[in-house]
Amino acid sequence: MERAEIIGVGTELLYGETLDTNTAEIAKSLKPYALKVERTLRVLDELGPLAREVGEAWARARLLVLSGGLGPTPDDLTREAVAMALGEELFLDEEMLEEIEAFFQSRGRRMPEANRKQAFRIPSARFLKNPRGTAPGWWVRREGKDLVLLPGPPAEWRPIWAELLPALGLPLRDYKERVLKTWGIGESDLVERIADLFPEASREGLEVGTYAKASGVEVVLRGPADAVDRLADRVKRRLLKEVWGEGGETMAALVQRRLLLEEATLATMESLTGGLLAAEITKVPGASKVYLGGVVSYTPGAKARFGVPEALLDRTVSEEAARAMAEAARRSLGATYGLSTTGVAGPDPLEGQPVGTVYVALAGPGGVEVRRYRFPPSSREVIRLRSVYAALALLLT
Amino acid sequence: MERAEIIGVGTELLYGETLDTNTAEIAKSLKPYALKVERTLRVLDELGPLAREVGEAWARARLLVLSGGLGPTPDDLTREAVAMALGEELFLDEEMLEEIEAFFQSRGRRMPEANRKQAFRIPSARFLKNPRGTAPGWWVRREGKDLVLLPGPPAEWRPIWAELLPALGLPLRDYKERVLKTWGIGESDLVERIADLFPEASREGLEVGTYAKASGVEVVLRGPADAVDRLADRVKRRLLKEVWGEGGETMAALVQRRLLLEEATLATMESLTGGLLAAEITKVPGASKVYLGGVVSYTPGAKARFGVPEALLDRTVSEEAARAMAEAARRSLGATYGLSTTGVAGPDPLEGQPVGTVYVALAGPGGVEVRRYRFPPSSREVIRLRSVYAALALLLT
Repeated sequence: MERAEIIGVGTELLYGETLDTNTAEIAKSLKPYALKVERTLRVLDELGPLAREVGEAWARARLLVLSGGLGPTPDDLTREAVAMALGEELFLDEEMLEEIEAFFQSRGRRMPEANRKQAFRIPSARFLKNPRGTAPGWWVRREGKDLVLLPGPPAEWRPIWAELLPALGLPLRDYKERVLKTWGIGESDLVERIADLFPEASREGLEVGTYAKASGVEVVLRGPADAVDRLADRVKRRLLKEVWGEGGETMAALVQRRLLLEEATLATMESLTGGLLAAEITKVPGASKVYLGGVVSYTPGAKARFGVPEALLDRTVSEEAARAMAEAARRSLGATYGLSTTGVAGPDPLEGQPVGTVYVALAGPGGVEVRRYRFPPSSREVIRLRSVYAALALLLT
Repeated sequence: MERAEIIGVGTELLYGETLDTNTAEIAKSLKPYALKVERTLRVLDELGPLAREVGEAWARARLLVLSGGLGPTPDDLTREAVAMALGEELFLDEEMLEEIEAFFQSRGRRMPEANRKQAFRIPSARFLKNPRGTAPGWWVRREGKDLVLLPGPPAEWRPIWAELLPALGLPLRDYKERVLKTWGIGESDLVERIADLFPEASREGLEVGTYAKASGVEVVLRGPADAVDRLADRVKRRLLKEVWGEGGETMAALVQRRLLLEEATLATMESLTGGLLAAEITKVPGASKVYLGGVVSYTPGAKARFGVPEALLDRTVSEEAARAMAEAARRSLGATYGLSTTGVAGPDPLEGQPVGTVYVALAGPGGVEVRRYRFPPSSREVIRLRSVYAALALLLT
């Protein structure tokens, strides 16, 4: 398969001062095409190294996309690097200069001298107009190959790319991706449950990946559409109890949808998650339709204040405490369901229980369900996050 | 200058299913050293391309760090690719196998067969023990150069890398970075206040960057240590009211420290932040010493239940509501301070107020302070985050 290369330009991307999400987004946009993306690069703002990377990528690519480095400042060097790598000369395009001047005029300003450089191109480049900024892109077609320069800000490059990509006439392929999201099974165990499906999948040209996230292990299937769907069905049958969602679905969004369907409401009472469960639920727009509110009972005093029996206050990391908290949440706000978390986020053990010990409980019209977890040692924040998903999973699995 | 190369391994990094922040963090950790990072790569889980990239990077680097691809699954191929690129054979290290088996045993489980591959190494590699996971790293020293394999999860690789990096004996340079964190001033205004310091800074070999974050604008100074310290002093004098912290300090940690010093306690009542304020406060270990707990009053009913006067329930996005909520939080948990947030996170306006309208209030022994913000249009999550920092800033600035 022919190759696509994607390069993000900017020292700030290398060091994460600006998070580079552009190269990944561009790679994703190429998935329906029969082009292979083997790697993405982030390269610093320096002419020599940048020109070398552009030259190497161009030599092996059918399509090369560069993101960023088209601004007006001296460290914006993408144009210069591409000209050097392709052995062409930059020249000032008077027509584009007028457009950039007009852009500033329409905002009641004079064009700063620095912006002149954005009107330069090489002979084989056509400009890609950028109605949202002063940096036009470039499209170079040479030797049956395409090279595209896009400005860095997503609001600027996305519309340019959405228009250009279909026009490039890249070869299409039969491709689909599905992401199955599970809870309640470890990565190794999950792989053991489905490993016998791998050889056939591989023969059909499918890729299978598993990724451990705080919200559970994800199984990603990629390849020809029909084969992906068939394999997804088989994997889901194997993991009937564990798969809770697919693709971009989040637990919190599914919980909201389920509660809406049931015409039910939810209240929370959190100890170790300290507000993170409520924050996850309220991240989803429309949460106030089903989520009444909650309590962060971070101290025994607060637990007592919000309805946990005195007798439980010296053993708050327990099944009984989780149960009492879920019931107190439900009762105190008059909700259909009460959801609670208690446990040890670390760094220190609590009440003689090791870090990672977590109880979650769901109180509803039919009674209370409690689950106990012993998460492997990890950072405080990861244990808190996994506890949030453990609690939400009570409403889904 | 000699080169460092950093490669993130994993198809999921290429496509952003897992955001690659590891390569940037590793690049940053190399800043005190006289090694040049010209680029970072993300490479897919495929033996051929991965081995080729490793080979090319190894050929030109003094130090090559690979992150990820050390898991137990068939698509974890970093070990194999490195063996191929370096022309060495993998073999099973019985001692490491026993350690991995013991890791599982200590958790009351048998080691799945898939994890055997994590005990393989090449002859020139030493294992780097990973107390938090089953994937040990590798350290290879050959031809006066270093190659390091780190597991992908930050909680696992960070402690390994923190211990190994100083031991590598890499050449040092006169370098320091300081990050001054501000609240309450926009990026352009901030730059105007300090722009006259830039020419001299540049002559002294300093880089000055400003970055707008949810917690405020950060001023980053990099270069020779003494010059950085001198400039930091001058910048801090210019921004005396705005600078609230430095480096890795977070508002929540500073709030905790201040409350400890005052022997004071805190309670919260949140509307638009929906638990995110409590979650930020409890992210810091030891929060229970000063944070009693809080309430997420996401509906008018919940606000009434937790002590907000009936008369305010139809105008909850107001100075009066913020004030009443802060007082209710303080009173209901008997805390020294009560902190509240209310406002419009979006996507829709509320009570006739546009998205981004936010009130935060602090009730204390001396009365109540309320601040009003009108954040620029942005995502729901960004507005919620900025509101959290606006609330915490009440205790700091």
